[in-house]
Amino acid sequence: MTDLYDNPTELSDVLDNQRVLDVRVAVEHADVESLHGLLDALHPADVADLLEQISDGTRGRLLELWKGQIDGEVLSELDDSIREDIINRLNASELVNAVRHLETDDVVDLVQDLDQLQQKVILEALEDAERVVVEQSLSYPENSAGRLMQREVVMAPEHWNVGQAIDYLRRQQELPEQFYHIILIDPRMRPTGYVPIGKLLGAKRAVPLQEVTEHSFRTIPFDQPEGDVAYAFNQYHLISAPVVDSDDRLIGVITIDDAMIVQDEQHEEDIMRLAGVGEGSLSDRVAATTKRRLPWLVVNLCTAIMASLVISIFEATIAQVVALAVLMPIVASMGGNAGTQSLTVAVRAIATKDLTTSNVWRVIRREVLVGLGNGIIFAAVLWFVGFFWFGSPMIAWVLALAMVLNMVVAGLAGTAVPVLLEKIGVDPALAAGAFVTTVTDVVGFFAFLGLAAWVLV
Amino acid sequence: MTDLYDNPTELSDVLDNQRVLDVRVAVEHADVESLHGLLDALHPADVADLLEQISDGTRGRLLELWKGQIDGEVLSELDDSIREDIINRLNASELVNAVRHLETDDVVDLVQDLDQLQQKVILEALEDAERVVVEQSLSYPENSAGRLMQREVVMAPEHWNVGQAIDYLRRQQELPEQFYHIILIDPRMRPTGYVPIGKLLGAKRAVPLQEVTEHSFRTIPFDQPEGDVAYAFNQYHLISAPVVDSDDRLIGVITIDDAMIVQDEQHEEDIMRLAGVGEGSLSDRVAATTKRRLPWLVVNLCTAIMASLVISIFEATIAQVVALAVLMPIVASMGGNAGTQSLTVAVRAIATKDLTTSNVWRVIRREVLVGLGNGIIFAAVLWFVGFFWFGSPMIAWVLALAMVLNMVVAGLAGTAVPVLLEKIGVDPALAAGAFVTTVTDVVGFFAFLGLAAWVLV
Repeated sequence: MTDLYDNPTELSDVLDNQRVLDVRVAVEHADVESLHGLLDALHPADVADLLEQISDGTRGRLLELWKGQIDGEVLSELDDSIREDIINRLNASELVNAVRHLETDDVVDLVQDLDQLQQKVILEALEDAERVVVEQSLSYPENSAGRLMQREVVMAPEHWNVGQAIDYLRRQQELPEQFYHIILIDPRMRPTGYVPIGKLLGAKRAVPLQEVTEHSFRTIPFDQPEGDVAYAFNQYHLISAPVVDSDDRLIGVITIDDAMIVQDEQHEEDIMRLAGVGEGSLSDRVAATTKRRLPWLVVNLCTAIMASLVISIFEATIAQVVALAVLMPIVASMGGNAGTQSLTVAVRAIATKDLTTSNVWRVIRREVLVGLGNGIIFAAVLWFVGFFWFGSPMIAWVLALAMVLNMVVAGLAGTAVPVLLEKIGVDPALAAGAFVTTVTDVVGFFAFLGLAAWVLV
Repeated sequence: MTDLYDNPTELSDVLDNQRVLDVRVAVEHADVESLHGLLDALHPADVADLLEQISDGTRGRLLELWKGQIDGEVLSELDDSIREDIINRLNASELVNAVRHLETDDVVDLVQDLDQLQQKVILEALEDAERVVVEQSLSYPENSAGRLMQREVVMAPEHWNVGQAIDYLRRQQELPEQFYHIILIDPRMRPTGYVPIGKLLGAKRAVPLQEVTEHSFRTIPFDQPEGDVAYAFNQYHLISAPVVDSDDRLIGVITIDDAMIVQDEQHEEDIMRLAGVGEGSLSDRVAATTKRRLPWLVVNLCTAIMASLVISIFEATIAQVVALAVLMPIVASMGGNAGTQSLTVAVRAIATKDLTTSNVWRVIRREVLVGLGNGIIFAAVLWFVGFFWFGSPMIAWVLALAMVLNMVVAGLAGTAVPVLLEKIGVDPALAAGAFVTTVTDVVGFFAFLGLAAWVLV
């Protein structure tokens, strides 16, 4: 720690393209000394990013040359696939060294995604007391508050005053690395409030702790999904929050830095789901990625074939007026885009709990009106396109009408579909996209070709 | 604060649909007493959510009935459009009361989005010292670290020991609401390290502060974009970070709770941009929303017309074989979806700095291979569709070949386009979608119809 201070230029050690390049050159020349110069001062998160960005071959050689330097923090930061790969390369004693200095919540985070065999090796590397704690955490549901919390809690009886709390803290041999509050507990270990340590330092010794507790206090049940935990931290600006068991007794604490990581992961999932890309990372292999993207493409194939079936109903009409085939994708595509806009807003609003049964009708009405507004605007534009391109007022009117209709349907489906999916317990981010574009494709083709067929008859 | 403790059931006061309903009923019956019961114990963030979820009329009446209860924290939490609306309803003295108890960074956050007139009213409501601080913050670039930071900093000379720091803190009349570190400064006010206050409490009095400083220390330049600030907090697990001016002197501090809010906003922007929805919220009006969604739809119209132009080249071919019109949307749609998958992964990886010039070629190669893999799988499926639906091996082969081609192009364009946009300084989340779907539409229609025309000749 002092070296950081002695050499303040190291503070700005960051990972940039130049450094990645330098590392690759050093690895190629097996230049161990340069490698240490380039890597040793880097933050574990940056080391992990670097390991993810280089090729498999370079990474293998780097690990040979920089032997024994991968610590638990680097492992924690790595993508799953590369982490497994690296753990497989480490021998037992290296692994033991790597995880020994991690806090228990980081060990849990590291261990939970590993396969049974790797899990066992790491658990055996821990000291008995730590292993028990980690195994206990692993017994909580996946992605729950219980998995996220750290077990090291700083607490005090609710009837103490500031002086007693300070003296107590000063007497402790070992305090957790990160703690921001003292949690007050009643005689049955139930948390009843908390005091920020900053306030503790600012208050007179005789002041009862209960007089300096903070408004934002909320307890978190051990089985609360981690997404809801992150939401609560963001919504109520929490810094840390006590976790309680089913009898409301204090069993751990979650701090905002962990909640921020969960928030980031949740957003990643949201974006990836909306695009029909499953979980995964840039470092996954081709076969794994291909397989993961397949399901969404299969769904899309079905919806595309459904749209084709609609078109095939009107084959005779198209044979008569080929211009219809030229123009029909415009109607479908505009509807699909407008639907995706409404959908994205709705999915996001559901996730942030801004769209609820209290305002769903108002939001649907708004989206339909927005669809109508944009529909009319683009209908006017397309009327001219149809008229001047194909010189046919019939085509112009059909195009314009189909456009308005499809945009209104897009606004309706884009909002109603995710709301309904949410109601029946299906993740709207995952499934709504396919439904909505199916609706806008089918309605788009049907309205345009159907109107044309009707006018032509 | 004590009442929170005396009445612990209030701790679980949350906003749910039932409560929104109850509030609406209370407003309808002008039942002020129930209204206070329902709202007074609610967290400001939940009050803000409630105000956003009810209709304009109900909100107006609620504000009449619940007069004077809207405080600065509620205002901070509100969506822009509703915040402006509510500020307009408050008279000067109510406004003064509302903002008086806010920390300066919250005032800055509140004031920066308001129009000039409203800004002036609020600034005048502040005490002189506070106004100067707020005006200074407003002089920093928008969305920069300078706007985000709080000015209340707890610092100590770097040569002090733990005992001196504790005594100093205990002597202070007023400490900031939120502080987690003591920042060490050199004689020229440059931050050189920081000590978590938890560690301060755990260390012996004689220990020099420099021996208990923390690894994660990094300073943030005042003009750093807030997105980069949030990235640094997430990447390096920072809890707070000192902000420095252009001479590296300490001018403020950013805490993780503010960084978490920025991270949330950034993600919101990312998702909305990918879907072509501008900034805005559920509470915006129809006209504003229609206008905001228009640009993206205009772009989409242009790309759709471009695709139509491609189709129109092959009008004669379609007139000959109408089945082509039925099947062509499948090729375009599958390509569009595969392209969006690659694009989303690439945009997200660029945002998280996982996709850099170090690994761009490897990622492009991977995406092309994934496209090839899925292309071959779906080509096989579509061969059967073409063969058994239309009984034509010619159509089956054309469909299959066009599919492979378009999926490969989708993988290539989905990755290369955002990377190139990023290189020339355009936000890939905003612009890449239109480019990529144009490419997959044009290539899809051209490959399918072109191959068909070529085979037919």
